[in-house]
Amino acid sequence: MADYRAPRDDMDFVLHDVFNVTADWQKSDMLADMMDQDTASAILDEAAKVAEQLIAPVSRQADEEGVTFNGGEVTTPAAYKENFRQLAEGGWVGVTANPDFGGMGLPKSLSAQYEEMLCSADVAFSLYPGLTSGAIMTLDLHASEDIKQTYLEKMVQGEWTGTMCLTEPHAGTDLGIIKTKAEPQGDDSYLISGTKIFITGGEHDLVDNIVHLVLAKLPDAPAGTKGISLFVVPKYLVNEDGSVGERNAVSCGSIEHKMGIHGSATCVMNFDAARGWMVGEPNRGLAAMFTMMNYERLGVGIQGLGTAERSYQNALEYAKDRIQGRGAKATRDMNAAADPLLVHGDIRRMLLTMKSLTEGGRAFSTWVGQQLDRAKYGESEEVKQRADAMVALLTPVAKAFLTDTGLESTIHGQQIFGGHGYVREWGQEQLIRDTRIAQIYEGTNGIQALDLLGRKVVGSNGQLLHPFVAEIREFIEQASSDVWSTQFNQLANAISDLERVTSQIIERAQSDENQVNSVAVEYLHLVGYIAYAYLWLRMALVAETKQDERPYLASKIKTARFYFARMLPRIASLISAIEDGSESLYLHDDEDF
Amino acid sequence: MADYRAPRDDMDFVLHDVFNVTADWQKSDMLADMMDQDTASAILDEAAKVAEQLIAPVSRQADEEGVTFNGGEVTTPAAYKENFRQLAEGGWVGVTANPDFGGMGLPKSLSAQYEEMLCSADVAFSLYPGLTSGAIMTLDLHASEDIKQTYLEKMVQGEWTGTMCLTEPHAGTDLGIIKTKAEPQGDDSYLISGTKIFITGGEHDLVDNIVHLVLAKLPDAPAGTKGISLFVVPKYLVNEDGSVGERNAVSCGSIEHKMGIHGSATCVMNFDAARGWMVGEPNRGLAAMFTMMNYERLGVGIQGLGTAERSYQNALEYAKDRIQGRGAKATRDMNAAADPLLVHGDIRRMLLTMKSLTEGGRAFSTWVGQQLDRAKYGESEEVKQRADAMVALLTPVAKAFLTDTGLESTIHGQQIFGGHGYVREWGQEQLIRDTRIAQIYEGTNGIQALDLLGRKVVGSNGQLLHPFVAEIREFIEQASSDVWSTQFNQLANAISDLERVTSQIIERAQSDENQVNSVAVEYLHLVGYIAYAYLWLRMALVAETKQDERPYLASKIKTARFYFARMLPRIASLISAIEDGSESLYLHDDEDF
Repeated sequence: MADYRAPRDDMDFVLHDVFNVTADWQKSDMLADMMDQDTASAILDEAAKVAEQLIAPVSRQADEEGVTFNGGEVTTPAAYKENFRQLAEGGWVGVTANPDFGGMGLPKSLSAQYEEMLCSADVAFSLYPGLTSGAIMTLDLHASEDIKQTYLEKMVQGEWTGTMCLTEPHAGTDLGIIKTKAEPQGDDSYLISGTKIFITGGEHDLVDNIVHLVLAKLPDAPAGTKGISLFVVPKYLVNEDGSVGERNAVSCGSIEHKMGIHGSATCVMNFDAARGWMVGEPNRGLAAMFTMMNYERLGVGIQGLGTAERSYQNALEYAKDRIQGRGAKATRDMNAAADPLLVHGDIRRMLLTMKSLTEGGRAFSTWVGQQLDRAKYGESEEVKQRADAMVALLTPVAKAFLTDTGLESTIHGQQIFGGHGYVREWGQEQLIRDTRIAQIYEGTNGIQALDLLGRKVVGSNGQLLHPFVAEIREFIEQASSDVWSTQFNQLANAISDLERVTSQIIERAQSDENQVNSVAVEYLHLVGYIAYAYLWLRMALVAETKQDERPYLASKIKTARFYFARMLPRIASLISAIEDGSESLYLHDDEDF
Repeated sequence: MADYRAPRDDMDFVLHDVFNVTADWQKSDMLADMMDQDTASAILDEAAKVAEQLIAPVSRQADEEGVTFNGGEVTTPAAYKENFRQLAEGGWVGVTANPDFGGMGLPKSLSAQYEEMLCSADVAFSLYPGLTSGAIMTLDLHASEDIKQTYLEKMVQGEWTGTMCLTEPHAGTDLGIIKTKAEPQGDDSYLISGTKIFITGGEHDLVDNIVHLVLAKLPDAPAGTKGISLFVVPKYLVNEDGSVGERNAVSCGSIEHKMGIHGSATCVMNFDAARGWMVGEPNRGLAAMFTMMNYERLGVGIQGLGTAERSYQNALEYAKDRIQGRGAKATRDMNAAADPLLVHGDIRRMLLTMKSLTEGGRAFSTWVGQQLDRAKYGESEEVKQRADAMVALLTPVAKAFLTDTGLESTIHGQQIFGGHGYVREWGQEQLIRDTRIAQIYEGTNGIQALDLLGRKVVGSNGQLLHPFVAEIREFIEQASSDVWSTQFNQLANAISDLERVTSQIIERAQSDENQVNSVAVEYLHLVGYIAYAYLWLRMALVAETKQDERPYLASKIKTARFYFARMLPRIASLISAIEDGSESLYLHDDEDF
């Protein structure tokens, strides 16, 4: 496997040349003092070192070792404990956390780059700090001051880790039917009883304590999702002085044997009247959890991006080194036995598909990160609200499209290796196994599509799509480029198509309950390809103005042309499927399947 | 995991109702006496029992055990040895073999069904008899009488197995650069020296002897693919009386640790002046090997089909059992906590995608099998030649399209399971890992596409496409159905599109050496989707005439409608990519990647 090299140049290009994030930071009281381009670069350079030198080199070995379960204890791969300690010492567990509790407080546009590097290095490892970071945010936003004081500093320092305990054996997507109970004890504590499954990092040997965030129902809770509360349940109770105290009645019953992310412990967690404390309001737990999940969903999308980048780097090195077959005459070295794979059209098709999706994906994740930052730090309510609307629209796209295209990319990356891609030692097949889960967990990509089309677009009668469409239309109107007129036309047509099918779906959904969920996945992909097209054109125009000083940007312009020639046309089939609607999906009776 | 149930009804429908294979058999001297519909059904019923009761139940466990390597010896999963013995005793190793040597001599249209069942049951296990079957055919077609007498009966009886030794560390796709040498010994034997990799079943503990078919170069051989000869090299030399004699100088150096097919031994084989005998003519070894590989490539395609069918059966059972979320009001059981997954549009989309690709794939593999049978047993030279041309055209499509859609189907099948699909015990993720190799080995799917578009279509100046186009056009002209007029129009338009882009490619290829390999994969998929559309329409029309007597055929008609509504429109994007040609793939210099 090629050594992982963080794509720092491309990250800087996207952050500063394309999105000019420093201009945003300067408008924010909170960020203006702490963050400028030099600081950002220094932070990302350090992050790159951690990813390249500490984490990435052991990812292959960690996959082979996996996690092991023995009498309730979980052992992680040998290198993880020391690596996690170093990560924590460097402050990387609290990279997005509130500075009041010792966090770095990085804006999301920046931390998205760090997350990408960590996911390229080792998705399985990245989940331990990743879930902790999510739990920190939830507590910071929703917990009482007392709870924050008890847990946050330790978590931010990476001395303790966090989990999210949602899923139960019978309740995955449908959290309304969970059974875990919380009995009030008269003081401010509750006794939590139930079984949670698929709990990432539910038990492990990396740190001294694990802080579980658990969804459960109060005795008098209403049925469904409006009767769910959130509790913090530590593995070890915390003493008055902040030290780790007696063991709580929470234990790991077993771990899952999975397709990939072998280094990540996926646990069945048993809560046997474990002591917990409520986070936020009674029966409002799901809302609290979703505040965080929305923020984290971009992070899951970035798992797809990170694995795709790693796969691309490996595949490119292989395509340059491996000689096999003859290309067109012009490219031949007639002294060699054969030409490098890179000369062959089909290899280039796969590489450029990966490259255009990965660089497009990086631009997309950074764009969504910028919107999240504006929603949080924006200089006015108007800016915040506009960004909030974009975040609501684009979050499910980021989660699902980055991971769907991540899988596609890693499959191409494996294919380029031929038979060697199927052999574990080369690492390409691991990336497929590791990235596949990102399409499934934190809400399956089908659920993301339903969220986008049902709750967001149709739910707002199309209103939530407007800022997205308006931004792209504005870009098309303002830009003038003869060189790119074909691509501008393609983008304009795609936006018109999007508006047309959106109206059609909203119209049809009034009389057809099955409409939305019958076309939602194709709709999400349509939005994804259009968003990437918009970003590729933005990148190409910026690259044109800067390629004299940075010749490597010539590549951007070429990849943009590839994207419009070979990738964007995929929307034709998506539009056709959307226009077909639900009818052909509901012809079959149960026994016809 | 659901118990595997062989889709016997659908196989009979395809064989007899759609393709009326018995009419073909009756026209053949060789087949007329031995095969009729009742015999065929009895054979497939027995095959179904073997697959369902013997092989399928241990596939999950065999994946966990895998093969182990110890000092040159390879141990297969515990159940494999006895299962292989029973398979051999039932005559299933020699299912397609020449009856002169004890084979069943089944026509391919029939054996394709057996192969599908075996692949659904356990792809890894299926490779041991599968490769043996290929080696048998190669020897039967090309070896001297002496060699045939020495090896064939034992192989047909499954007492010995066979391998194909092509790939070397530096030579995968590009066999012209192999280095393995064959030194003539003055008698009729040669000493073979070299290293072969990725040798399926190169070493194992199932049988007493392994018969390797090895590509190697004679001392005076010309360079490239025209200097390759084929040799038979047994693990143990065979005594005059046919018994196993002394060990030959061939040994297994190691085995690969792979993404999937863990029960299949993938070996590095070292030939250290091992004794071998030439098969066929000097320097014509590649042609001999390809005779067989063409026949076997359908078999590899069927691996994709078989895994897709298994994944569908599992996913369907899960979608009916698992309750999660609420569907449209009309489908609700308000007494239950939630509705079965099956009510949800996106679940139905995935299931019907799988179903339409799998049943379409079964029709396609049977159709190609019928063409192979006509090429071999046809009643006239004209029939044989026409079938030969269809085989040449459709073989790469069968190999690549059945496996590409096989991967897509198994991914949907995993997605339907949500998080459980990622956990090994449910079996869905294994099917992805097991099917993935079929897109890579026996010529990657990119190479299949190059074979189809480059060697076959462009190489014949489009002639080889004519029988395919003519058959579909004839079908369109003869059929008259108001009910299906939309679909007939879609098909007619698709055929016109195919002809148009074919002419365009041929034209462009005259001045652009990169043209073919830049659009070959999309072209192959285009042919695949059109072939399935043709077959779906044929199936629908047949089902309409027979659904009164067999009500389950109503499902065929519905699935055909789904295929035309949601699957065939995928060609719009393929056509667009093809029309773009090679330009956007060749903008990048090496350093731009």
